[in-house]
Amino acid sequence: MQATADTPIEITAFSWVPDFARGFVRDLRPRWALEELGLPYRTRLIDSRGPRPAEYYREQPFGQVPALRDDGVSLFESGAILIHLGEKDEKLLPRDPAERARAIVWTFAALNSIEPTISELAAIDIFYPGEEWASLRRPGAEDAARSKLSRLADWLGDKQWLEDRFTIGDLTMVTVLRDLDHTDLLAEFPSLTAYCERGTARPAFERAYRAQLSDLEDEARPSTDSSHVRGETA
Amino acid sequence: MQATADTPIEITAFSWVPDFARGFVRDLRPRWALEELGLPYRTRLIDSRGPRPAEYYREQPFGQVPALRDDGVSLFESGAILIHLGEKDEKLLPRDPAERARAIVWTFAALNSIEPTISELAAIDIFYPGEEWASLRRPGAEDAARSKLSRLADWLGDKQWLEDRFTIGDLTMVTVLRDLDHTDLLAEFPSLTAYCERGTARPAFERAYRAQLSDLEDEARPSTDSSHVRGETA
Repeated sequence: MQATADTPIEITAFSWVPDFARGFVRDLRPRWALEELGLPYRTRLIDSRGPRPAEYYREQPFGQVPALRDDGVSLFESGAILIHLGEKDEKLLPRDPAERARAIVWTFAALNSIEPTISELAAIDIFYPGEEWASLRRPGAEDAARSKLSRLADWLGDKQWLEDRFTIGDLTMVTVLRDLDHTDLLAEFPSLTAYCERGTARPAFERAYRAQLSDLEDEARPSTDSSHVRGETA
Repeated sequence: MQATADTPIEITAFSWVPDFARGFVRDLRPRWALEELGLPYRTRLIDSRGPRPAEYYREQPFGQVPALRDDGVSLFESGAILIHLGEKDEKLLPRDPAERARAIVWTFAALNSIEPTISELAAIDIFYPGEEWASLRRPGAEDAARSKLSRLADWLGDKQWLEDRFTIGDLTMVTVLRDLDHTDLLAEFPSLTAYCERGTARPAFERAYRAQLSDLEDEARPSTDSSHVRGETA
């Protein structure tokens, strides 16, 4: 739900990314959460080609997106942004202490237990194809990711979501698993494939995805910094 | 502050790890937080040699430590545990919304923006020394870590902590930076070296560190699973 200039919530997004990253940049996470909550937001677009403006590093020290401003609160790191947004409405972050804790657990698990193995595979396949180390490392990196996915599938079992209902933990995990789209690995785990499809079938995901694409410039242009757009963190 | 059996807070830790991991296992994070807060806790020791007991995967789906139980709340992921503990006392997690958000931002930044690059270096140096891909990849992995550290040092500037005072964000960041101890990389950033030393000079850190060592068996024994002890997440 993009909105007029008096909306309090502003997120940053990139104005251009290479083709492989379109629809996968991390501003998708707060966009999705905001759409789930029905909250309007503005986007401030950052050019990812070349160094960011110096002042942007004071807002996001690693130069990545998203960063969020909301009524005097300034945040970066998509996980921290999701907790901030989740606390506005129990729809995404339960108020019961035990359930709330589990939603936060899965947000961290997605970003720290699962994502690093998936990012290593993405780096090998997308940023370093043809490099000798990448070819030599790929089987081991794939095994490491497979091992994590196997544990995740064991946990999920036949549940719809990681806990009793959809939370910021699922939102984060689905966006992390999508980063395997360039591989056949997720297909080895039908329950995780179905879980990911349940997530991306939510109308709020679709709206967020289209909003990201609509903020990106169409034309392909040479990037001086493409390795930093998707593979690194924000 | 380890305590009697009626203490409500219980964390899991390993009963044995290889030498390189002693004093670095992630149960150090909740131990440190609990020592800062002066809260007693029990430890439940898990044998890291070989597969974990099947029931442990229902508590920690990836088989790692720490997991925490506290009065009906069951958690894993050290970042989520630190938020849970931080919410007990504003000493580690400010109650002011803007300051609280920043402490959570840095907890995620440590685990998702900084740690993956440091873990890649640690994997190369500790788990895969002598492998051809590791030698070929090491310069690039070191550059990636250096780039993140450079941004972090720019942010820190001449401040004592990442924000106005010590929070769970600093606690997490210091433990992440310590994982560079086997390299000379941190020494390239004197302000980060001093920051890390300020963290580990805190009496609560020292107590937590000694408590981890004291729970570990002394004797060196062959491990069937040593690659999972430190390099992977918990």
